[in-house]
Parts: sequence; structure tokens; C-alpha cells
Amino acid sequence: MEQAVIIAAGQTKFGDRYKEGIKELFAEAYQDMLDWAPGEVKPNSIQAAYVGTMGVGGMQLGQSASLLTGHIGLPYIPAVRIENACASGGFAFYQAVMAVESGKFDLVLAGGVEKMCDLSGSKVKYWLGVSGDNEYERLAGLTFAGIYAIMATRYMEEYGMEKKYLSLVALKNHKNGSLNPKAHFQREISLEKAMAAANVAFPLNLFDCSPISDGAAVVLVASRSWAEKRGIDFIRVLGTGAASDYLAIHDRDSMTGLVASQRAAAAAYEMAGLGPEEIDLFEIHDCFTIAEIMAYEDLGLAEKGRGWLLLKDKKTFLDGQRPVNTSGGLKAKGHPLGATGISQVGEIFLQLMGRAGARQVEKARIGLTHNVGGSGGTAVVSILGR
Amino acid sequence: MEQAVIIAAGQTKFGDRYKEGIKELFAEAYQDMLDWAPGEVKPNSIQAAYVGTMGVGGMQLGQSASLLTGHIGLPYIPAVRIENACASGGFAFYQAVMAVESGKFDLVLAGGVEKMCDLSGSKVKYWLGVSGDNEYERLAGLTFAGIYAIMATRYMEEYGMEKKYLSLVALKNHKNGSLNPKAHFQREISLEKAMAAANVAFPLNLFDCSPISDGAAVVLVASRSWAEKRGIDFIRVLGTGAASDYLAIHDRDSMTGLVASQRAAAAAYEMAGLGPEEIDLFEIHDCFTIAEIMAYEDLGLAEKGRGWLLLKDKKTFLDGQRPVNTSGGLKAKGHPLGATGISQVGEIFLQLMGRAGARQVEKARIGLTHNVGGSGGTAVVSILGR
Repeated sequence: MEQAVIIAAGQTKFGDRYKEGIKELFAEAYQDMLDWAPGEVKPNSIQAAYVGTMGVGGMQLGQSASLLTGHIGLPYIPAVRIENACASGGFAFYQAVMAVESGKFDLVLAGGVEKMCDLSGSKVKYWLGVSGDNEYERLAGLTFAGIYAIMATRYMEEYGMEKKYLSLVALKNHKNGSLNPKAHFQREISLEKAMAAANVAFPLNLFDCSPISDGAAVVLVASRSWAEKRGIDFIRVLGTGAASDYLAIHDRDSMTGLVASQRAAAAAYEMAGLGPEEIDLFEIHDCFTIAEIMAYEDLGLAEKGRGWLLLKDKKTFLDGQRPVNTSGGLKAKGHPLGATGISQVGEIFLQLMGRAGARQVEKARIGLTHNVGGSGGTAVVSILGR
Repeated sequence: MEQAVIIAAGQTKFGDRYKEGIKELFAEAYQDMLDWAPGEVKPNSIQAAYVGTMGVGGMQLGQSASLLTGHIGLPYIPAVRIENACASGGFAFYQAVMAVESGKFDLVLAGGVEKMCDLSGSKVKYWLGVSGDNEYERLAGLTFAGIYAIMATRYMEEYGMEKKYLSLVALKNHKNGSLNPKAHFQREISLEKAMAAANVAFPLNLFDCSPISDGAAVVLVASRSWAEKRGIDFIRVLGTGAASDYLAIHDRDSMTGLVASQRAAAAAYEMAGLGPEEIDLFEIHDCFTIAEIMAYEDLGLAEKGRGWLLLKDKKTFLDGQRPVNTSGGLKAKGHPLGATGISQVGEIFLQLMGRAGARQVEKARIGLTHNVGGSGGTAVVSILGR
């Protein structure tokens, strides 16, 4: 198996990008990548592309991958659209890595894009709803926030966690987001403000929910031999793992953790030959604050039922022992669905390259990304190292 | 690179399957595969799945791959939805092969499904429209049949082909379909009837268009070493190739051939170390009759502008020198978008295994599949051999 490495990353500012469509956003992320890419990287050496997008809003529901690669000036390379709801970007990266590992290609673009802010509230609800089970959840009246609200309620009941700890996730991630010029939200919030916000689906209030965002992100995956031959600096892909679960939560054994995340992490740790204690920093899928706490446990940072205690000691804060979501996470950086998984990889790339600016984690050598589809129907984990 | 092989294939009958949804269709194809699969194949040894579907009708627009694998009893394996419009199935197979070639998995399910017949005419038009460029084609009033009608008109003008040759494609494929118990249409048609049908988009009439169909198909891809260790008979994947083009035809250099098909074929031939003259039979993407004639040229069966002459001599008929679309093709077997590319691979598998029944081609040793996304925005070609 060829070893895959990452040699460049780029992304747009996330947020309400009302002037741009998916083509303009994708081109902006691609140009941001090229601006930073080593001089040896020429666009015409890119051999294939994987694009993650849920296609929210339905602007181009058929083969949007080739529409986007055509728009950035790479019209003829194989372009494949990957769709696993909110994990579309993470799976696009997973496939780009596999394409290099297979030996078929030496240089592959992985990208993601979503345009959500120009949708009406009911349309947004529809699109988030179909990332869960359309037949047994959305059509039965369960909203997407409602699914995570059920998980949060159950978690609080089973493990005695108070609502305050959910708000601490928001506080931490907004604090990190304030240091990220590409984040949707760049202002700190107080614990009081976070706890007093209007309810969305009890116990989740407005500050427990990631925002509706527009944005795009890309990374360039190369074979290690290709990069070394050209003297290009790189970050290694040490391990990738993916898994699924029943789409509808009523089919699952537990409501306080995601089996897909647990299995994806186990596969990635096994491939990397590493355990969670050896990871310096994490980009975790915090679509709702409860999701980050459950992920602490699913990824092995804490034992079952004790994830929230990491927040008590500020262990996962930027200056803690295990920084989580230095980018601001989905909560503050924003969550343009297809772009999210790629942007997570981009953040770890920047951190390990020492290019993360005000939010730089010192001596970061190994990082992990964790991207979840919907309420856990799919998940993908990647481990990256210097 | 690990060599990938195919060890089993299954599909539903294509057609108006009004009683079944996508879950039931997918399960039926999967069961059909298991019924024929070697005894050594246990469902719990399947390690990953790629599912091609355009999601027509919007029944489950988010991560339908994991919904389907959960439904057939494989809830935890990584399941990835691949969407490249009408080539979604072909690209799902392409990714399944790559997953095995990378050495990450030994046994991977590639499947495809589409449910189209319960849509209204205007909804079908919408979904086919967005397999072209939504912004510059569909919204400007160009129908999907209209795009191929433009190509046909131009082809006839440039190369002096008469309308009769379009109808001969339909006649041939309906004849082949009459021998395929899984085909949507199983009745022969006369040349007179084909030529006299009502116009859809001049010069394409009703018999120049593939039907709107429901259906599903699956194939099981293994590493060669995995299959050999268990003494399982297999068909080798000799080469795969994929490519893209601008989505909108106004951006392309030519309207009488598909650059994506030409490039995908060149890549597949190069990987297989074979040329078109060494292929015994072909499953070609005949969404419209003109598409099959252009593909003769794009795949190297004929020189530019001379593809239609193959029909004159019946060279591509079932008992000709180069049988094309022995299954009935999209035209008569039916075209449930996501299922089509997988079903093409299944047909070549059956032919090379000697299990194609009344339509068996004698001494078939090498076959090629060709699957096109929309009007040529993407294409994927696979070469399979005994």
C-alpha cells in the first residue's frame, strides 16, 4: 500500500456567503490552497478529484463534482461526488486517500462544499431531516435537533451530567473560533449567555447547535514518493477508518454514544498503530454540544459516561492537555455540511505544519479528525502525523 | 496493487416495480446475488459497500448507502454513497475495485438502486435535467432528451447518417432484451414500428429513448488472493478508467462524441494492456440510440463518423462479430439510473461465466462496460476477463 500524505489545504471563510454559489465557493477554496501550495504543485498534475457535498438546496443534484472541477479548470480528470450527509467531506478525503493508497493516482484533490444560508427555515429543516431516516424519523415529526436532544436527555439522565457542561462545549469552541479568521463566528460567549439562550429542542438551546453556514474547503493528497521526489514538505496520513450504523436511532443499542464513531476510530487507531493517548489534538464533529461530549468517549479520550468531566478540568480547552476543536469546531467555525470534513483535515494540517496562527498548539505532532453523517448513520476518522 | 476480481452478481427484474421501495429493491438484488454466490461467501465477511444512486425522487437524500446496508443486515460496515448521475453505479463499482486494489479490504459490495416510476412526468424531467447543467441547460429550457437530440442532429448532419440507423440500435437492443428475463421490455420490435413512433425530441422518438425504470443490482468484488485461497471461481478486473468533461455541452469542443468516454476508455485500455479489437463483447451506455453509435467511436470499435456502419452489417448484433448490449442495454433492459452501471458489470460477469442463458455469447473471454453520467459530464469504463 502506498502511503498517502497531505501537501496543501485551503478553505473559504465560512458564514453567510450570500454573493457566492457553490462554484464560486469551491474556486475560492481551491485558490486559497494554490496560494499556499509548494511551487512544485501545478494544477495540471492533479489526476483525480473527490468532492463531498450533500447538495443541500438542490442547486445541482446530478454529478456536481464534475461541474466544480470543470469550473476550477480541471475539466477532464475523474471527478466523483461522495455523499454521506454531514460526513460527505470526511468520506471524500477517505476516498482520496484510498485512491493514492491503491497506487492508481499520485495526486488527488479532496474537496467539499455546501450552500445553505439562502434556504428558508423549512427547507433547511427538510435537508437536515433527510440526513436522518426520512421515513421513520423526519416524516414521523422528529427534527434533526430533536434526535440529538433525545441523546442529550438520555445522557444527562444516565450519567448525571448537568446542562452546564453542554454550554461549556459552546463556550470553549466559540473561544477557539475567535482566533480563527475563517470561522463563521469569531466572538467569545459567556457561560451565562450560553445557558440562557432560547431553546431549540430541550435540553439543546441556540448555543448548543452548530450554525447554518456556506463554505468550501479542499486538501491535496499525494503519494509519499511523489512528494519526496519533489522535496515537498508533507503531513502523513497515518490511519483512516470508517463505519456505519442503522440510520434511525430506534434501531440502535445505545442512545448515548455512536457505534459508527467507535468502529471508525478503532479502525483508524489500528491502521495507525496508535492509541488515543498518543494524539495531541482533535477536530471532533460537534454538530451539537452533546455530540462532542459523546465523541470524547467514542474516540477513547474518556471512559463511558465520563466525557463531560474533561470540560470540568478544561482538559480539552486550547491550553489544556488534549485540545479539541482548535478551529472553533462546527459550533463556531460553522458547518457547511460537505465542507466540514475537509476543513477538519485542513485544520490539523495547519496545526501540524505550525501555520495555525493565534490558535497554534505547541509541539503538535499527531492529530485526529472525526466526521459524522447525520445522527451517526456513518462516521469517518483520520489520524494525521508530522 | 492487489488485483480485484468479481465473484458474484445479482439484480432485480427492472421495470415498473410499484410495490417496492429502494430498500426492498436493494434487498432483492442482494438476495439474488447470495442465491448464486459460492458457498464460501458469508454476508458477515463483506467489509465495505459502495452504493450508486442519484436519489431520484428524493426518498432518502442523505446517506442512503448506510440505510440500504442496514436494511440488508450489514449495518456496521463502511457504506459510501457515490453519485455521478446516470454513472453512479459504474463509479460505485470503480470505487469498490479501488478499495480492493488499495489492500484495505478483501471483500467489497458494489451496488446501485433507483426508484423512478412513481414520479410524475414533470418530476422525472426535473431529475433527468439536473444530470446536465442545471443552471445553463435545464433552467434555460433544454430537456435531457433535447441534449442528445442536438448531438444526434449534428451527427447526422456531419456524417450523413440516416434516421434508420438510430432505429436499428433500438431494434437490436429490444431483440436482445427479449432474451433477458430481467429486462424491463422483453418484446422484439420491427424497424417500421421503431421509425414511426411519436417524437420525443427530434430526431429522437419514443423508441430512441431508454425507459424510466425501477431496479437494483449488486456485484461482489474480492481480492484475487482472497478468492483463490477459498477456491472460488472469479472474473478478473483487468482495467478501470474514469474521466469527466464540462457538464454543459456548450463548453465542449465537439457535440458528436464524448471526451469523458474517450478518456475513460483510454485509461482502462492502458491499465488492461488491451485494445478494443481484443474485446469480445460490450455493455454500452445507450440512454438514447445516438449514444450507442457515438460510443462505438469513443470506445474504438469504429473510426470517427463511421460507427453507424457497424449496424449496417449487423456487426454489433448478438450473432455479429462484436456483440453490444447483449442484456438489452439501457434501451430494453431498462435504466434505473444508479443500478445501470452495476447491472452492466453483472451482465459481463454472467456472459464470461457462461451463465447468460438464451443470450449467451460463445467463447466470450473479455468484456467491457461503459457507463455515462448525464450527457457526458462523467464516464467510467471497466474491462473484465476470464
